[in-house]
Amino acid sequence: MSPVILINVFTVAPADQTRLVELLTRATETSVQHAPGFLSATLHRSLDGAKVTMYAQWRSAEDYQAMRADPTPAPYLQEALQIATFEPGMYEVAERFGGAEA
Amino acid sequence: MSPVILINVFTVAPADQTRLVELLTRATETSVQHAPGFLSATLHRSLDGAKVTMYAQWRSAEDYQAMRADPTPAPYLQEALQIATFEPGMYEVAERFGGAEA
Repeated sequence: MSPVILINVFTVAPADQTRLVELLTRATETSVQHAPGFLSATLHRSLDGAKVTMYAQWRSAEDYQAMRADPTPAPYLQEALQIATFEPGMYEVAERFGGAEA
Repeated sequence: MSPVILINVFTVAPADQTRLVELLTRATETSVQHAPGFLSATLHRSLDGAKVTMYAQWRSAEDYQAMRADPTPAPYLQEALQIATFEPGMYEVAERFGGAEA
C-alpha cells in the first residue's frame, strides 16, 4: 500500500515563526514520531517568515487519525494554534520528477 | 549551500483535479525539470479532490526565479490558473524526523 502524505501549512506572524517551529518540533519529538505508522516528516520555515509547513509520510490515513486522537501532543499544538492558523491536506503522490543534476 | 524548497498549493474543483495534475505534469516534463538548478519535485493529489500540491527542491532561489521567467511552460500554467488558485511558498528545512519504522 502507498503511504499517505500530510502537507499541513501553518500561517503565522513572522515574529512568531521561530516559536511555532519549536512547538511543532516538540509535538513531533515527544509524541507524533513514536506513533504507529509514522514514517518520516520534514518541517519547513518559509523564507518570508509567514509560514511553517510540515510534510509527513504515514503508513495509512487510519494511523494518522489515531495519532490525532492521542492527547499527548495537545499542549504544544494548542499553543501553536494560538499563534497560527492551520490548513491541513492529505495526499497521495501523483508524479515524481528527477532533475538532471539530482 | 542548502537547497530551497518550493511548496506550491493549488486549490481546485474536484472535477478538475485530474486535468490540473496533467497540466502541471506537462509543464514540469517539457520545461521546468530541464532548468538549471532544478533538483527534484513530487506532485501530490489530495484525497478529497480539492487540492494539488507541488513539492520541489531547487539549488537556489535565483535558479527558481530564472525558471519562472522562462515562457516555455506558460501555456500549461495559464490553463492551470484558469481552473485553480495558487498559494506559493519558498522554504528552508527546519527539522527532519525519522520514524522508527522508516
